[in-house]
Amino acid sequence: MNKITIVGAGLAGSLLSVYLAKKGFEVNVYERRPDMRRSDTGGGKSINLALSTRGIHALKEVGLYDEIKKIAIPMYGRMIHPTEGELSFQRYGKDDSEYINAVSRAELNISLMNLAEKNDNVKIYFSERCTGIDLKNSVTYFHNDITGIDSKAESDIVVATDGATSAVRLEVQKIPRFNFSQEYENYGYKELVIPAGKDGSFLMEKNALHIWPRGSFMLIALPNLDGSYTCTLFLAYDRALGGDSSFENLVDNKKVNEFFVRHFPDFVKLKPDLEEEFFRNPVGTLMTVKCFPWTFENKVCLLGDACHAIVPFFGQGMNAAFEDCIYLNQCIEKHGTDWGKVFGEYQLLRKENSDAIADLARENFVEMRDLVADERFLLKKKIEAVLFKKYPDIFIPKYSMVTFHRIPYSTALKRGKIQERILSELSDGINSADEINYDKAHSLVKDNLDRLY
Amino acid sequence: MNKITIVGAGLAGSLLSVYLAKKGFEVNVYERRPDMRRSDTGGGKSINLALSTRGIHALKEVGLYDEIKKIAIPMYGRMIHPTEGELSFQRYGKDDSEYINAVSRAELNISLMNLAEKNDNVKIYFSERCTGIDLKNSVTYFHNDITGIDSKAESDIVVATDGATSAVRLEVQKIPRFNFSQEYENYGYKELVIPAGKDGSFLMEKNALHIWPRGSFMLIALPNLDGSYTCTLFLAYDRALGGDSSFENLVDNKKVNEFFVRHFPDFVKLKPDLEEEFFRNPVGTLMTVKCFPWTFENKVCLLGDACHAIVPFFGQGMNAAFEDCIYLNQCIEKHGTDWGKVFGEYQLLRKENSDAIADLARENFVEMRDLVADERFLLKKKIEAVLFKKYPDIFIPKYSMVTFHRIPYSTALKRGKIQERILSELSDGINSADEINYDKAHSLVKDNLDRLY
Repeated sequence: MNKITIVGAGLAGSLLSVYLAKKGFEVNVYERRPDMRRSDTGGGKSINLALSTRGIHALKEVGLYDEIKKIAIPMYGRMIHPTEGELSFQRYGKDDSEYINAVSRAELNISLMNLAEKNDNVKIYFSERCTGIDLKNSVTYFHNDITGIDSKAESDIVVATDGATSAVRLEVQKIPRFNFSQEYENYGYKELVIPAGKDGSFLMEKNALHIWPRGSFMLIALPNLDGSYTCTLFLAYDRALGGDSSFENLVDNKKVNEFFVRHFPDFVKLKPDLEEEFFRNPVGTLMTVKCFPWTFENKVCLLGDACHAIVPFFGQGMNAAFEDCIYLNQCIEKHGTDWGKVFGEYQLLRKENSDAIADLARENFVEMRDLVADERFLLKKKIEAVLFKKYPDIFIPKYSMVTFHRIPYSTALKRGKIQERILSELSDGINSADEINYDKAHSLVKDNLDRLY
Repeated sequence: MNKITIVGAGLAGSLLSVYLAKKGFEVNVYERRPDMRRSDTGGGKSINLALSTRGIHALKEVGLYDEIKKIAIPMYGRMIHPTEGELSFQRYGKDDSEYINAVSRAELNISLMNLAEKNDNVKIYFSERCTGIDLKNSVTYFHNDITGIDSKAESDIVVATDGATSAVRLEVQKIPRFNFSQEYENYGYKELVIPAGKDGSFLMEKNALHIWPRGSFMLIALPNLDGSYTCTLFLAYDRALGGDSSFENLVDNKKVNEFFVRHFPDFVKLKPDLEEEFFRNPVGTLMTVKCFPWTFENKVCLLGDACHAIVPFFGQGMNAAFEDCIYLNQCIEKHGTDWGKVFGEYQLLRKENSDAIADLARENFVEMRDLVADERFLLKKKIEAVLFKKYPDIFIPKYSMVTFHRIPYSTALKRGKIQERILSELSDGINSADEINYDKAHSLVKDNLDRLY
């Protein structure tokens, strides 16, 4: 039976090891960080995630969904916080049956690792930093940062799930004809926590993703099980782009306080020690990675962020990586250990869709920070809901296609563009969804969109 | 006085060391390859280059042009080889005063290294492979591939001129907010030599760049001093793109012979041992590299192919790298050793122009392999010449702006697009340059283009 090395025991690597274990492979997973179950490693990444249909499908396939469901908080829509005035709620789906799930990254990762290790044929090694790879012979080299010992792993194939700054990808980048790009946003992010109220109570609506849209920047908040919220400020790095609304400007307590009081007055009331936490937490970067090919010499394969890191604004990074696992698993079911065929089909199936979700995610930043507070956008959303109701198998809102369906991302991107044109045309010159011209709507939908189902 | 490390003693590194030596800096150059003056290293890159105005300007600044002129062969235009029928000549410039120069890469590099070493304050170390860099402290690490000895170089600044696959760039790529892309063409290239005739005679026109344009692929030839020609076949890698006209198809002597006899019959008559040489020489790749920033911590700076490798179809790779040296030198003259200011201005001046020549070079592939054999293209070229004569300070052909001027590449790109629109409009509906509508031409030029001088 084939022996498989996985580089990285993050979400994608841990899930994949479960899939592969079920197929009977001998799987060795090497993780750069210490075991997060034994130490508080922080992880350096955002603390909570939005688990949705694609990710859930994968968790169901490996039999972990029921367990994860218990630690997930449903978010039924966006709660919009204007600078002044009333909050407003924008539903994500058609009703309470459609929602996204706030899940702790650490808890999900731990559950996946525990599940993986229940299989005798999976072993996870920690503090093992990948230092190189011999692609032709699928030999991977590691350095243990605790013991200082260098080692190598020989196996039939290597799957790199070592994230956006993948060490394996840095090696394959030297291969001729490897196309690669990494592009950073001119925005960074900073995490801040709103603590729970008395007895773990939630101080804002629990079942929503909170957004403070401010045009060129925004604050968001996701609920945690303990009643706290993990909030993230997305802000321009430089004055040249953001003026006073930039990390470059927020250099002392006074400036930070002024900025938050001015733009997020209701947040400030819920947030003790704002300035102290602001300066304690680092500014994170936002990067899009695209590359091709994803597989080499029928020996090595990239998966998840390692080959398609995206910005977080559609909440799809983990979901897309989990979908990679679903499809890689299907390719193995189809082609067995004919790795050339498995890899060829896997990258063909996934590349176009990964490019699409990368673009969708960047688009959604503008939607979240700006459009959700825009009258015309809200009108279009209402028209969209009407069309969805009328043509449920033809006109599915873009957000729903991405979040509540397993429609290929590339289809969602293409149809999303067509639908946006239809919504623009129908919203033109009217001020309320009551004024929709249904004849026009009917012909626009019928002429421009095929049935999806 | 400041101490400077240069990584790479190729064309750009060697030239830069001369510039910096003249400023009195202590310059240490580390080259990965053995000394090409003592061994035949091949170098792995194309054997001859097209030196033009920008590169010549740099060579004049360092006082090397008179020496190089002696080993340069003027090429006054393109000699087009159709599959059947007469050759035709397309002049590059306005007259014999405008030409590009075929120069041996090795000879130019050797001249530059010799010139550099005439300065007591320049030392070049060979077989020193860069293995890492400490950006904050400008310490560079090397491994000598002959002696096996590891060493480090401490200096005030480090300039990386280590080419398209730069080892230094691979290190800075790990820095947050470093944007980077490497993109390969779906075409590769293969070099083949037409030997000299008796007594070193040239078997084709000496003073021309020969092109066999075949639509989706092409062969070109540049003259060498010894009477031979270095020819390069540019061809699709894969059948999926090129059909039978692909490297994938050319797998045995018979197929190679058939392909060349069919598409390049006159070339075959001049080329002995075609099949043998075809399979001896490797297929080279064609890559475009873009990145930003180019400078780090006021300590480290990328230059030439290391930050902007381009495809060779405009003959500007070396010329663009030499222009980097011209401008970096100017920035030092302006700001002294205030490296923050020097680097800031250097990358600001060069980035936009490097992006532009990258795009121009990719465009020119289509022109060389396809358009030069197109009637309408030739008509536009004639109209272009007429407009150039009539408006010499406003309408300069794109090729001339890039090749015979030091007009910023970005200006050449922008004006080139406008001029192409003008030429399309003027050529529309006519069959000869005699039919130009001069009133229309006058208003198009005056309305759309400012004076350049």
